[in-house]
Amino acid sequence: MAYPYFQAVDLLRQHSPLVQCLTNSVVMQFTANVLLAAGAAPAMCDTPEESADFAAVADGVLLNAGTPSAEQYRGMAAAIRGANTAGTPWVLDPVAVGGLKKRTDFARGVLAQQPAAIRGNASEITALAGLGTGGRGVDATDSVDSALTAAHLLAERTRAVVAVSGPQDLIVSPGRVTRLHSGDPMLQLVIGTGCSLGALTAAYLGVTRHHPDLSTHDAVVAAHAHMGVAGQLAAPRSQGPGSFAVTLIDALHQVSAGDLRTHSEIQEEQA
Amino acid sequence: MAYPYFQAVDLLRQHSPLVQCLTNSVVMQFTANVLLAAGAAPAMCDTPEESADFAAVADGVLLNAGTPSAEQYRGMAAAIRGANTAGTPWVLDPVAVGGLKKRTDFARGVLAQQPAAIRGNASEITALAGLGTGGRGVDATDSVDSALTAAHLLAERTRAVVAVSGPQDLIVSPGRVTRLHSGDPMLQLVIGTGCSLGALTAAYLGVTRHHPDLSTHDAVVAAHAHMGVAGQLAAPRSQGPGSFAVTLIDALHQVSAGDLRTHSEIQEEQA
Amino acid sequence: MAYPYFQAVDLLRQHSPLVQCLTNSVVMQFTANVLLAAGAAPAMCDTPEESADFAAVADGVLLNAGTPSAEQYRGMAAAIRGANTAGTPWVLDPVAVGGLKKRTDFARGVLAQQPAAIRGNASEITALAGLGTGGRGVDATDSVDSALTAAHLLAERTRAVVAVSGPQDLIVSPGRVTRLHSGDPMLQLVIGTGCSLGALTAAYLGVTRHHPDLSTHDAVVAAHAHMGVAGQLAAPRSQGPGSFAVTLIDALHQVSAGDLRTHSEIQEEQA
Repeated sequence: MAYPYFQAVDLLRQHSPLVQCLTNSVVMQFTANVLLAAGAAPAMCDTPEESADFAAVADGVLLNAGTPSAEQYRGMAAAIRGANTAGTPWVLDPVAVGGLKKRTDFARGVLAQQPAAIRGNASEITALAGLGTGGRGVDATDSVDSALTAAHLLAERTRAVVAVSGPQDLIVSPGRVTRLHSGDPMLQLVIGTGCSLGALTAAYLGVTRHHPDLSTHDAVVAAHAHMGVAGQLAAPRSQGPGSFAVTLIDALHQVSAGDLRTHSEIQEEQA
Repeated sequence: MAYPYFQAVDLLRQHSPLVQCLTNSVVMQFTANVLLAAGAAPAMCDTPEESADFAAVADGVLLNAGTPSAEQYRGMAAAIRGANTAGTPWVLDPVAVGGLKKRTDFARGVLAQQPAAIRGNASEITALAGLGTGGRGVDATDSVDSALTAAHLLAERTRAVVAVSGPQDLIVSPGRVTRLHSGDPMLQLVIGTGCSLGALTAAYLGVTRHHPDLSTHDAVVAAHAHMGVAGQLAAPRSQGPGSFAVTLIDALHQVSAGDLRTHSEIQEEQA
Repeated sequence: MAYPYFQAVDLLRQHSPLVQCLTNSVVMQFTANVLLAAGAAPAMCDTPEESADFAAVADGVLLNAGTPSAEQYRGMAAAIRGANTAGTPWVLDPVAVGGLKKRTDFARGVLAQQPAAIRGNASEITALAGLGTGGRGVDATDSVDSALTAAHLLAERTRAVVAVSGPQDLIVSPGRVTRLHSGDPMLQLVIGTGCSLGALTAAYLGVTRHHPDLSTHDAVVAAHAHMGVAGQLAAPRSQGPGSFAVTLIDALHQVSAGDLRTHSEIQEEQA
């Protein structure tokens, strides 16, 4: 069984999708560097005045309300409107949803507006589905497996592909669950690896517009494999979280379709 | 004489305190990586709607008005309210206070609201105490020793522990002065080392909630020793400020209680 | 023919000009580190309340509307006012001007307010002059040479020095064109190298205030040579865009006047 997502990394580099990121201030720089290294083109356009127009020309859009100003919330509403009008796929990253009321209301509110994918950790996905109260800040306190029910619920309700990131990633669509074993614990010690995985997911979704034979589900798997395998390759070349952040960016740039095939372990299930 | 702060680094890693940072946009990413590498859990939650609730669950809070938007000022007011209601210790970093009126008024205004610690360079501490007009932007133009009177004045007035960072750090409480010789000149060439030291101070204050035998004063010394000794270990492994920023993060992660004992030189005085 | 800008790097380090950056959130940290490594002193002061006062004491000011909040736009208006009153030179970086209406209107609107220099890629300069519609987000889709007419037009109209960055840089003043061959393709794979070149340009303009014998045109050439040669030196020491970003900062710190002379290829033309 050939997984098209091993080849998707070549398509990403060939098309260099333009990814509009409405994301938190903490990770903007790192996210842009992740996208550039991976092969995509980042644009952190997030104002209310420009976001709708930009979403119409972007190949993919990320919404991540990690440090949501009032102005950025309005930018996000504009971006969704622009993306949906133009048919641009967009990703919701429900950062720290659960304990914090305003962002939880926001994230639940946009679920009805057709995100193509949703990516979070186990606690965020569980809380977004209304089955839990979230983690501690941005830490997951729930296990990936405990989030499976929540992921199914969200996938059925929104028709989005739902990804739960963790030591093992779950990618869930109605009727399909992909389990991906890749990554390295060091990824938890660098800020923005999860957030930029959301952006990378939007980049791979951008590829599906040029290659409809790459399904949304497979695009989400490809993004997670790209980040996870880059993490695996980077860890032994680093001496701690500082040098790991550097070698991770290098690895995101260097990793080949063959590396993804060799280093990621995947299980498919009918759900 | 055994200094408890040599052991505090182990407590930090054991408890991984959740640190809420309301800080400037320039250093958010670096600050989060410093906290993660050192052993704490960062959360850059700073909106008016969420800051009070988050301060109630955080272990420590940092207020740093380096790029203060109107919205972030309101977030800071909310965070102080939430922190003080819940008993969460908070740190004031009076970045570039002195020449700039709005932030100077803000920093002086919150002095009455019980910060647990205040951290700045010599010019900032001097200006905050009303004894000088500040430095050049964020540069200290006063010497650490010249700030001793100002630090005493602030410590008496606010009951906070006051830290003056520089080639030699001064940590001042009513009746006590600790002088810490550690660090490396390269720390001045990487943006955010001072700002993230404020965040690390909030992290160590978070430890005191679990270990009341670690005093606030000792927690502030521990934070400064952790950053300073990491800088000393990192400098010889680097080729310039770019690689120093990387090896510093690695060293913050690796440094042990024994390293702190060996590499930091400390003098205690009755004041 | 001796180019004074080979020596300008020594003047930069001697004076350490204070550079106020009103720039986008994505590149604030990197820009500050570029300035520190090169020898300047960064201050990311951008609020409406503080920007005019700060511009009066800064040596140079950068305006870059890459992620322009309503509040930052007001800060930019204040900074221009303060800079022009005090005679502080300021640089306009018209990020992604062309396709996005609000920032395009803003950038064209401030052209009448006497920027000392304008720096952008070929598409941005072309669009700013009204001769094109911009690139794809922040990517240049026009060639540097195609922007020569636009650069001349802007230089004549505004009396600013106009720099077009790319594989080859063009620096254009009324009656003079300097072509600079330096740099490395890897510079395109790290976010903020262009934006921080705008800040470095403001730093070198700050030097001209202390050394009027260094012309504004030569200061702009010096900034581009400093970044370009640092990129050349950094590339062979790196394994990808992550490590390149690190070695670039190291090289910005290490590069000497002699390195600039040896590694940059320059052609002067009467225009």
